[in-house]
Amino acid sequence: MPVVLSVVGRSQVGKTTFLEKLVPEIKRRGYTVGTIKHDAHDHFEMDKAGKDTWRHREAGSQTVAIGSPTRFALIKKVSREMDLDTIVASYFPDEDLVLTEGYKSGNKTKIEICRKEVHSEPLCGEADRLAAVVSDFPVALEVPCFDLEDISGVAEFMEKRFLSHTTRPNVILRLDGRKLPIKSFVRDFLMGGILGMISTLRGYENPAQIDISIRLRKR
Amino acid sequence: MPVVLSVVGRSQVGKTTFLEKLVPEIKRRGYTVGTIKHDAHDHFEMDKAGKDTWRHREAGSQTVAIGSPTRFALIKKVSREMDLDTIVASYFPDEDLVLTEGYKSGNKTKIEICRKEVHSEPLCGEADRLAAVVSDFPVALEVPCFDLEDISGVAEFMEKRFLSHTTRPNVILRLDGRKLPIKSFVRDFLMGGILGMISTLRGYENPAQIDISIRLRKR
Repeated sequence: MPVVLSVVGRSQVGKTTFLEKLVPEIKRRGYTVGTIKHDAHDHFEMDKAGKDTWRHREAGSQTVAIGSPTRFALIKKVSREMDLDTIVASYFPDEDLVLTEGYKSGNKTKIEICRKEVHSEPLCGEADRLAAVVSDFPVALEVPCFDLEDISGVAEFMEKRFLSHTTRPNVILRLDGRKLPIKSFVRDFLMGGILGMISTLRGYENPAQIDISIRLRKR
Repeated sequence: MPVVLSVVGRSQVGKTTFLEKLVPEIKRRGYTVGTIKHDAHDHFEMDKAGKDTWRHREAGSQTVAIGSPTRFALIKKVSREMDLDTIVASYFPDEDLVLTEGYKSGNKTKIEICRKEVHSEPLCGEADRLAAVVSDFPVALEVPCFDLEDISGVAEFMEKRFLSHTTRPNVILRLDGRKLPIKSFVRDFLMGGILGMISTLRGYENPAQIDISIRLRKR
Protein backbone atom coordinates (compact mmCIF):
# COMPACT_ATOMS: atom_id res chain seq x y z
CA MET A 1 0.00 0.00 0.00
CA PRO A 2 1.22 3.49 -0.82
CA VAL A 3 2.24 6.27 1.50
CA VAL A 4 -0.55 8.86 1.59
CA LEU A 5 0.14 12.56 2.23
CA SER A 6 -2.50 15.28 2.20
CA VAL A 7 -1.72 18.66 0.67
CA VAL A 8 -4.04 21.07 2.47
CA GLY A 9 -4.57 24.81 2.67
CA ARG A 10 -7.19 27.48 2.27
CA SER A 11 -9.18 27.89 -0.88
CA GLN A 12 -7.23 29.55 -3.71
CA VAL A 13 -3.93 29.20 -1.87
CA GLY A 14 -2.40 27.24 -4.74
CA LYS A 15 -2.72 23.56 -3.81
CA THR A 16 -3.23 22.41 -7.39
CA THR A 17 -0.40 24.61 -8.65
CA PHE A 18 1.89 23.15 -5.99
CA LEU A 19 0.89 19.58 -6.94
CA GLU A 20 1.50 20.35 -10.60
CA LYS A 21 5.11 21.03 -9.72
CA LEU A 22 5.55 18.36 -7.06
CA VAL A 23 4.18 15.35 -8.97
CA PRO A 24 6.82 15.44 -11.76
CA GLU A 25 9.56 15.99 -9.18
CA ILE A 26 8.50 12.88 -7.24
CA LYS A 27 8.24 10.87 -10.47
CA ARG A 28 11.70 12.03 -11.49
CA ARG A 29 12.95 10.37 -8.31
CA GLY A 30 11.59 7.02 -9.46
CA TYR A 31 8.33 6.73 -7.56
CA THR A 32 4.86 6.14 -8.97
CA VAL A 33 2.36 8.79 -7.92
CA GLY A 34 -1.41 8.99 -7.78
CA THR A 35 -3.54 11.93 -6.67
CA ILE A 36 -6.95 12.31 -5.05
CA LYS A 37 -8.87 15.57 -5.07
CA HIS A 38 -11.40 16.26 -2.37
CA ASP A 39 -14.58 17.89 -3.58
CA ALA A 40 -16.36 18.69 -0.34
CA HIS A 41 -19.11 20.58 -2.12
CA ASP A 42 -20.01 17.95 -4.67
CA HIS A 43 -19.40 20.25 -7.59
CA PHE A 44 -17.35 18.03 -9.83
CA GLU A 45 -18.56 17.08 -13.27
CA MET A 46 -16.68 14.15 -14.75
CA ASP A 47 -18.92 13.36 -17.62
CA LYS A 48 -20.89 15.16 -20.31
CA ALA A 49 -24.68 15.11 -20.49
CA GLY A 50 -25.82 12.90 -23.35
CA LYS A 51 -22.63 10.82 -23.59
CA ASP A 52 -23.05 7.04 -23.36
CA THR A 53 -21.49 6.76 -19.90
CA TRP A 54 -23.70 9.60 -18.69
CA ARG A 55 -26.75 7.74 -20.03
CA HIS A 56 -25.63 4.56 -18.21
CA ARG A 57 -25.52 6.50 -14.96
CA GLU A 58 -28.88 8.12 -15.56
CA ALA A 59 -30.34 4.65 -16.14
CA GLY A 60 -29.23 3.69 -12.64
CA SER A 61 -25.91 1.92 -13.10
CA GLN A 62 -24.19 2.11 -9.73
CA THR A 63 -20.70 2.04 -11.16
CA VAL A 64 -19.94 3.11 -14.73
CA ALA A 65 -16.57 2.57 -16.36
CA ILE A 66 -15.08 3.29 -19.75
CA GLY A 67 -11.99 1.62 -21.09
CA SER A 68 -9.82 2.53 -24.07
CA PRO A 69 -6.37 1.47 -25.23
CA THR A 70 -4.68 4.27 -23.26
CA ARG A 71 -7.04 5.23 -20.47
CA PHE A 72 -9.59 3.93 -18.03
CA ALA A 73 -12.21 5.91 -16.13
CA LEU A 74 -14.80 5.12 -13.53
CA ILE A 75 -17.69 6.97 -11.92
CA LYS A 76 -19.41 5.53 -8.90
CA LYS A 77 -22.40 6.64 -6.85
CA VAL A 78 -21.77 6.34 -3.14
CA SER A 79 -24.29 6.40 -0.33
CA ARG A 80 -21.77 8.09 1.94
CA GLU A 81 -18.42 9.68 1.25
CA MET A 82 -15.61 7.15 0.81
CA ASP A 83 -12.81 7.65 3.30
CA LEU A 84 -9.21 7.89 2.17
CA ASP A 85 -8.24 4.46 3.46
CA THR A 86 -10.95 2.82 1.38
CA ILE A 87 -10.15 4.86 -1.73
CA VAL A 88 -6.45 4.09 -1.49
CA ALA A 89 -6.91 0.38 -0.77
CA SER A 90 -9.43 -0.04 -3.58
CA TYR A 91 -7.99 2.13 -6.31
CA PHE A 92 -4.36 2.97 -5.58
CA PRO A 93 -2.85 -0.29 -4.28
CA ASP A 94 0.10 -0.14 -6.68
CA GLU A 95 1.31 3.43 -6.27
CA ASP A 96 4.29 4.31 -4.11
CA LEU A 97 2.85 7.66 -3.10
CA VAL A 98 -0.65 9.09 -3.14
CA LEU A 99 -0.98 12.85 -2.72
CA THR A 100 -4.37 14.20 -1.81
CA GLU A 101 -5.53 17.72 -2.55
CA GLY A 102 -7.64 18.60 0.44
CA TYR A 103 -8.94 16.06 2.97
CA LYS A 104 -7.85 18.27 5.86
CA SER A 105 -10.26 16.39 8.13
CA GLY A 106 -8.83 13.04 7.00
CA ASN A 107 -6.43 11.03 9.14
CA LYS A 108 -3.36 11.43 6.92
CA THR A 109 -0.13 13.29 7.48
CA LYS A 110 -0.44 16.80 6.07
CA ILE A 111 1.59 19.39 4.24
CA GLU A 112 0.02 22.84 4.36
CA ILE A 113 0.42 25.42 1.61
CA CYS A 114 0.37 29.05 2.78
CA ARG A 115 0.43 32.21 0.72
CA LYS A 116 0.43 35.70 2.23
CA GLU A 117 -1.88 37.09 -0.43
CA VAL A 118 -4.57 34.71 0.82
CA HIS A 119 -4.10 34.55 4.58
CA SER A 120 -1.75 35.44 7.40
CA GLU A 121 -1.61 32.22 9.41
CA PRO A 122 -1.78 28.50 8.79
CA LEU A 123 -5.02 26.55 8.75
CA CYS A 124 -3.49 23.59 10.57
CA GLY A 125 -2.43 23.49 14.19
CA GLU A 126 -0.30 21.07 16.15
CA ALA A 127 -3.17 18.57 16.39
CA ASP A 128 -3.52 18.12 12.63
CA ARG A 129 -0.69 15.65 11.92
CA LEU A 130 1.10 18.48 10.14
CA ALA A 131 4.50 17.34 8.82
CA ALA A 132 5.60 20.50 7.03
CA VAL A 133 4.53 23.91 5.81
CA VAL A 134 5.21 25.31 2.36
CA SER A 135 4.84 29.05 2.54
CA ASP A 136 5.90 32.42 1.20
CA PHE A 137 5.93 33.94 4.70
CA PRO A 138 7.46 32.84 8.02
CA VAL A 139 5.22 30.49 9.99
CA ALA A 140 5.38 30.00 13.75
CA LEU A 141 4.94 26.25 13.92
CA GLU A 142 7.41 23.62 15.03
CA VAL A 143 7.53 21.77 11.73
CA PRO A 144 9.91 22.11 8.76
CA CYS A 145 9.00 25.09 6.59
CA PHE A 146 9.81 25.24 2.87
CA ASP A 147 9.65 28.12 0.47
CA LEU A 148 6.76 27.91 -2.02
CA GLU A 149 9.25 27.59 -4.86
CA ASP A 150 11.46 24.97 -3.19
CA ILE A 151 9.77 21.98 -4.81
CA SER A 152 12.91 19.91 -4.78
CA GLY A 153 13.37 20.57 -1.05
CA VAL A 154 9.83 19.34 -0.35
CA ALA A 155 10.34 16.25 -2.52
CA GLU A 156 13.63 15.51 -0.74
CA PHE A 157 11.90 15.82 2.63
CA MET A 158 9.04 13.53 1.58
CA GLU A 159 11.40 10.95 0.17
CA LYS A 160 13.63 10.83 3.26
CA ARG A 161 10.83 10.97 5.78
CA PHE A 162 8.11 8.87 4.15
CA LEU A 163 9.23 6.94 1.12
CA SER A 164 12.25 5.04 2.32
CA HIS A 165 10.03 2.41 3.96
CA THR A 166 7.63 1.77 1.10
CA THR A 167 9.07 -1.62 0.32
CA ARG A 168 8.38 -3.60 3.45
CA PRO A 169 6.09 -6.60 3.07
CA ASN A 170 2.59 -5.94 4.26
CA VAL A 171 -0.76 -7.69 4.53
CA ILE A 172 -4.10 -5.90 4.25
CA LEU A 173 -7.16 -7.85 5.32
CA ARG A 174 -10.58 -6.47 4.46
CA LEU A 175 -13.92 -7.94 5.47
CA ASP A 176 -16.82 -6.62 3.41
CA GLY A 177 -14.58 -3.75 2.39
CA ARG A 178 -13.63 -2.70 5.93
CA LYS A 179 -9.96 -3.00 6.80
CA LEU A 180 -9.45 -5.22 9.83
CA PRO A 181 -6.46 -4.08 11.88
CA ILE A 182 -4.10 -7.00 12.44
CA LYS A 183 -1.12 -7.35 14.74
CA SER A 184 2.29 -8.18 13.31
CA PHE A 185 2.22 -11.83 14.41
CA VAL A 186 -1.14 -12.31 12.68
CA ARG A 187 0.34 -10.62 9.60
CA ASP A 188 3.32 -12.96 9.60
CA PHE A 189 1.13 -16.00 10.28
CA LEU A 190 -1.25 -15.11 7.42
CA MET A 191 1.55 -14.31 4.99
CA GLY A 192 3.41 -17.51 5.82
CA GLY A 193 0.28 -19.63 5.66
CA ILE A 194 -0.90 -18.22 2.35
CA LEU A 195 2.52 -18.33 0.72
CA GLY A 196 2.79 -21.93 1.87
CA MET A 197 -0.51 -22.74 0.21
CA ILE A 198 0.03 -21.02 -3.12
CA SER A 199 3.74 -20.87 -3.83
CA THR A 200 3.80 -24.31 -5.41
CA LEU A 201 0.93 -23.56 -7.80
CA ARG A 202 1.75 -23.64 -11.49
CA GLY A 203 1.93 -20.01 -12.63
CA TYR A 204 3.32 -18.69 -9.35
CA GLU A 205 6.46 -16.84 -10.38
CA ASN A 206 7.93 -14.57 -7.78
CA PRO A 207 5.10 -12.00 -7.67
CA ALA A 208 5.49 -8.65 -5.89
CA GLN A 209 1.86 -8.54 -4.88
CA ILE A 210 -0.77 -11.17 -4.14
CA ASP A 211 -4.48 -10.39 -3.92
CA ILE A 212 -7.04 -12.91 -2.80
CA SER A 213 -10.79 -12.26 -2.80
CA ILE A 214 -13.12 -14.73 -1.17
CA ARG A 215 -16.84 -14.41 -1.69
CA LEU A 216 -18.74 -16.43 0.87
CA ARG A 217 -22.29 -15.44 0.01
CA LYS A 218 -24.39 -12.72 -1.55
CA ARG A 219 -24.27 -9.47 0.41
CA MET B 1 -17.47 -11.65 -8.46
CA PRO B 2 -20.29 -10.48 -10.69
CA VAL B 3 -21.70 -12.13 -13.77
CA VAL B 4 -20.47 -10.22 -16.83
CA LEU B 5 -22.51 -10.01 -20.04
CA SER B 6 -21.49 -8.03 -23.12
CA VAL B 7 -24.10 -6.11 -25.09
CA VAL B 8 -22.68 -5.92 -28.59
CA GLY B 9 -23.82 -4.80 -32.01
CA ARG B 10 -22.92 -2.53 -34.89
CA SER B 11 -22.34 1.16 -34.43
CA GLN B 12 -25.57 3.17 -34.04
CA VAL B 13 -27.65 0.04 -33.57
CA GLY B 14 -28.93 1.24 -30.20
CA LYS B 15 -26.75 -0.46 -27.60
CA THR B 16 -26.87 2.48 -25.18
CA THR B 17 -30.62 2.90 -25.67
CA PHE B 18 -31.11 -0.79 -24.91
CA LEU B 19 -28.96 -0.56 -21.77
CA GLU B 20 -30.90 2.51 -20.62
CA LYS B 21 -34.00 0.34 -20.54
CA LEU B 22 -32.40 -2.88 -19.31
CA VAL B 23 -30.48 -1.50 -16.31
CA PRO B 24 -33.56 -0.27 -14.41
CA GLU B 25 -35.38 -3.54 -15.20
CA ILE B 26 -32.53 -5.59 -13.70
CA LYS B 27 -32.35 -3.31 -10.66
CA ARG B 28 -36.11 -3.66 -10.16
CA ARG B 29 -35.48 -7.39 -9.81
CA GLY B 30 -33.19 -6.77 -6.85
CA TYR B 31 -29.74 -7.00 -8.40
CA THR B 32 -26.96 -4.43 -8.30
CA VAL B 33 -25.70 -3.45 -11.74
CA GLY B 34 -22.56 -1.83 -13.07
CA THR B 35 -21.73 -0.98 -16.69
CA ILE B 36 -18.54 -0.75 -18.72
CA LYS B 37 -18.38 1.06 -22.04
CA HIS B 38 -15.72 0.08 -24.55
CA ASP B 39 -14.11 2.99 -26.34
CA ALA B 40 -12.00 1.26 -28.96
CA HIS B 41 -11.03 4.53 -30.60
CA ASP B 42 -9.86 6.34 -27.51
CA HIS B 43 -12.29 9.21 -28.00
CA PHE B 44 -13.71 9.56 -24.55
CA GLU B 45 -13.29 12.75 -22.58
CA MET B 46 -13.98 12.34 -18.89
CA ASP B 47 -12.58 15.56 -17.61
CA LYS B 48 -12.52 19.22 -18.53
CA ALA B 49 -9.36 21.04 -19.52
CA GLY B 50 -8.24 23.33 -16.74
CA LYS B 51 -10.08 21.54 -13.92
CA ASP B 52 -7.97 20.48 -10.93
CA THR B 53 -8.15 16.77 -11.76
CA TRP B 54 -7.18 17.52 -15.36
CA ARG B 55 -4.17 19.48 -14.08
CA HIS B 56 -3.16 16.53 -11.86
CA ARG B 57 -3.17 14.27 -14.90
CA GLU B 58 -1.23 16.74 -17.01
CA ALA B 59 1.38 16.90 -14.23
CA GLY B 60 1.90 13.16 -14.62
CA SER B 61 -0.25 11.56 -11.94
CA GLN B 62 -0.81 7.98 -13.08
CA THR B 63 -4.15 7.63 -11.36
CA VAL B 64 -6.31 10.63 -10.49
CA ALA B 65 -9.39 10.36 -8.32
CA ILE B 66 -11.96 12.80 -7.01
CA GLY B 67 -14.25 12.09 -4.09
CA SER B 68 -17.34 13.92 -2.92
CA PRO B 69 -20.15 13.04 -0.49
CA THR B 70 -22.24 11.44 -3.23
CA ARG B 71 -19.84 10.39 -5.97
CA PHE B 72 -16.38 9.07 -6.69
CA ALA B 73 -14.51 9.18 -9.98
CA LEU B 74 -11.20 7.91 -11.21
CA ILE B 75 -9.09 8.34 -14.34
CA LYS B 76 -6.11 6.12 -14.95
CA LYS B 77 -3.47 6.03 -17.65
CA VAL B 78 -2.78 2.52 -18.85
CA SER B 79 0.15 1.25 -20.86
CA ARG B 80 -2.07 -1.31 -22.58
CA GLU B 81 -5.80 -1.75 -22.60
CA MET B 82 -7.19 -3.34 -19.45
CA ASP B 83 -9.06 -6.56 -20.14
CA LEU B 84 -12.54 -7.12 -18.79
CA ASP B 85 -11.46 -9.63 -16.16
CA THR B 86 -9.04 -7.14 -14.65
CA ILE B 87 -11.55 -4.27 -14.78
CA VAL B 88 -14.26 -6.33 -13.16
CA ALA B 89 -12.02 -7.82 -10.46
CA SER B 90 -10.52 -4.43 -9.61
CA TYR B 91 -13.50 -2.15 -9.82
CA PHE B 92 -16.73 -4.13 -9.78
CA PRO B 93 -16.20 -6.84 -7.15
CA ASP B 94 -19.46 -6.08 -5.37
CA GLU B 95 -21.96 -5.94 -8.21
CA ASP B 96 -24.24 -8.84 -9.04
CA LEU B 97 -24.19 -8.08 -12.75
CA VAL B 98 -21.88 -6.09 -14.99
CA LEU B 99 -23.14 -5.22 -18.45
CA THR B 100 -20.60 -4.10 -20.99
CA GLU B 101 -21.41 -1.95 -24.00
CA GLY B 102 -19.13 -3.31 -26.67
CA TYR B 103 -16.16 -5.60 -26.00
CA LYS B 104 -17.21 -7.90 -28.83
CA SER B 105 -13.67 -9.30 -28.94
CA GLY B 106 -13.73 -9.94 -25.19
CA ASN B 107 -14.25 -13.39 -23.70
CA LYS B 108 -17.67 -12.76 -22.17
CA THR B 109 -21.07 -14.14 -23.04
CA LYS B 110 -22.78 -11.80 -25.49
CA ILE B 111 -26.20 -10.41 -26.30
CA GLU B 112 -26.35 -8.83 -29.74
CA ILE B 113 -28.63 -5.94 -30.60
CA CYS B 114 -29.85 -5.88 -34.22
CA ARG B 115 -31.94 -3.26 -35.99
CA LYS B 116 -33.03 -3.57 -39.60
CA GLU B 117 -32.49 0.12 -40.29
CA VAL B 118 -28.79 -0.42 -39.62
CA HIS B 119 -28.01 -3.88 -41.00
CA SER B 120 -29.58 -7.04 -42.27
CA GLU B 121 -27.69 -9.74 -40.41
CA PRO B 122 -26.06 -10.20 -37.00
CA LEU B 123 -22.46 -9.28 -36.30
CA CYS B 124 -21.88 -12.35 -34.12
CA GLY B 125 -21.69 -15.92 -35.30
CA GLU B 126 -21.83 -19.22 -33.47
CA ALA B 127 -18.24 -18.85 -32.31
CA ASP B 128 -18.84 -15.64 -30.40
CA ARG B 129 -20.34 -16.98 -27.17
CA LEU B 130 -23.63 -15.46 -28.24
CA ALA B 131 -26.38 -16.18 -25.70
CA ALA B 132 -29.24 -14.26 -27.30
CA VAL B 133 -30.21 -11.76 -29.95
CA VAL B 134 -32.42 -8.74 -29.43
CA SER B 135 -33.72 -7.68 -32.81
CA ASP B 136 -36.53 -6.04 -34.76
CA PHE B 137 -36.18 -8.60 -37.57
CA PRO B 138 -36.01 -12.43 -37.65
CA VAL B 139 -32.50 -13.75 -37.16
CA ALA B 140 -31.31 -17.16 -38.35
CA LEU B 141 -29.21 -18.18 -35.37
CA GLU B 142 -29.81 -20.97 -32.89
CA VAL B 143 -30.07 -18.74 -29.84
CA PRO B 144 -33.09 -17.17 -28.14
CA CYS B 145 -34.29 -14.07 -29.99
CA PHE B 146 -36.13 -11.24 -28.25
CA ASP B 147 -37.98 -8.30 -29.70
CA LEU B 148 -36.18 -4.97 -29.28
CA GLU B 149 -38.99 -3.74 -27.02
CA ASP B 150 -39.20 -6.90 -24.89
CA ILE B 151 -36.93 -5.63 -22.12
CA SER B 152 -38.67 -7.65 -19.46
CA GLY B 153 -38.24 -10.83 -21.53
CA VAL B 154 -34.49 -10.19 -21.83
CA ALA B 155 -34.20 -9.47 -18.10
CA GLU B 156 -36.12 -12.65 -17.29
CA PHE B 157 -33.80 -14.65 -19.54
CA MET B 158 -30.67 -13.13 -17.97
CA GLU B 159 -31.95 -13.74 -14.48
CA LYS B 160 -32.87 -17.38 -15.08
CA ARG B 161 -29.83 -18.23 -17.13
CA PHE B 162 -27.06 -16.25 -15.43
CA LEU B 163 -28.05 -14.72 -12.12
CA SER B 164 -29.44 -17.64 -10.17
CA HIS B 165 -25.91 -18.81 -9.35
CA THR B 166 -24.40 -15.51 -8.27
CA THR B 167 -24.23 -16.55 -4.66
CA ARG B 168 -21.82 -19.46 -4.73
CA PRO B 169 -18.61 -19.04 -2.75
CA ASN B 170 -15.64 -18.19 -4.88
CA VAL B 171 -11.95 -17.41 -4.54
CA ILE B 172 -10.05 -15.07 -6.86
CA LEU B 173 -6.27 -15.16 -6.65
CA ARG B 174 -4.29 -12.45 -8.40
CA LEU B 175 -0.51 -12.21 -8.65
CA ASP B 176 0.69 -8.74 -9.61
CA GLY B 177 -2.81 -8.03 -10.88
CA ARG B 178 -3.04 -11.11 -13.12
CA LYS B 179 -5.72 -13.60 -12.19
CA LEU B 180 -4.26 -17.06 -11.63
CA PRO B 181 -6.68 -19.79 -12.66
CA ILE B 182 -7.16 -22.26 -9.81
CA LYS B 183 -8.81 -25.65 -9.72
CA SER B 184 -11.69 -26.28 -7.37
CA PHE B 185 -9.64 -28.31 -4.88
CA VAL B 186 -7.12 -25.46 -4.64
CA ARG B 187 -10.03 -23.05 -4.16
CA ASP B 188 -11.46 -25.14 -1.34
CA PHE B 189 -8.03 -25.63 0.22
CA LEU B 190 -7.29 -21.89 0.13
CA MET B 191 -10.71 -20.91 1.43
CA GLY B 192 -10.54 -23.44 4.24
CA GLY B 193 -6.99 -22.51 5.16
CA ILE B 194 -7.61 -18.78 5.20
CA LEU B 195 -10.90 -19.03 7.07
CA GLY B 196 -9.14 -21.23 9.60
CA MET B 197 -6.47 -18.58 10.08
CA ILE B 198 -8.70 -15.52 10.38
CA SER B 199 -12.08 -16.60 11.68
CA THR B 200 -11.00 -16.39 15.30
CA LEU B 201 -9.65 -12.85 14.96
CA ARG B 202 -11.37 -10.17 17.01
CA GLY B 203 -13.54 -8.19 14.58
CA TYR B 204 -14.34 -11.15 12.34
CA GLU B 205 -18.12 -11.17 12.22
CA ASN B 206 -19.65 -13.30 9.52
CA PRO B 207 -18.42 -11.29 6.49
CA ALA B 208 -19.78 -11.92 3.00
CA GLN B 209 -16.49 -11.03 1.38
CA ILE B 210 -12.87 -11.24 2.44
CA ASP B 211 -10.06 -9.48 0.60
CA ILE B 212 -6.42 -10.00 1.41
CA SER B 213 -3.58 -8.08 -0.20
CA ILE B 214 -0.01 -9.13 0.38
CA ARG B 215 2.80 -6.90 -0.72
CA LEU B 216 6.07 -8.76 -0.81
CA ARG B 217 8.33 -6.11 -2.27
CA LYS B 218 8.39 -3.02 -4.42
CA ARG B 219 7.35 -3.66 -8.01
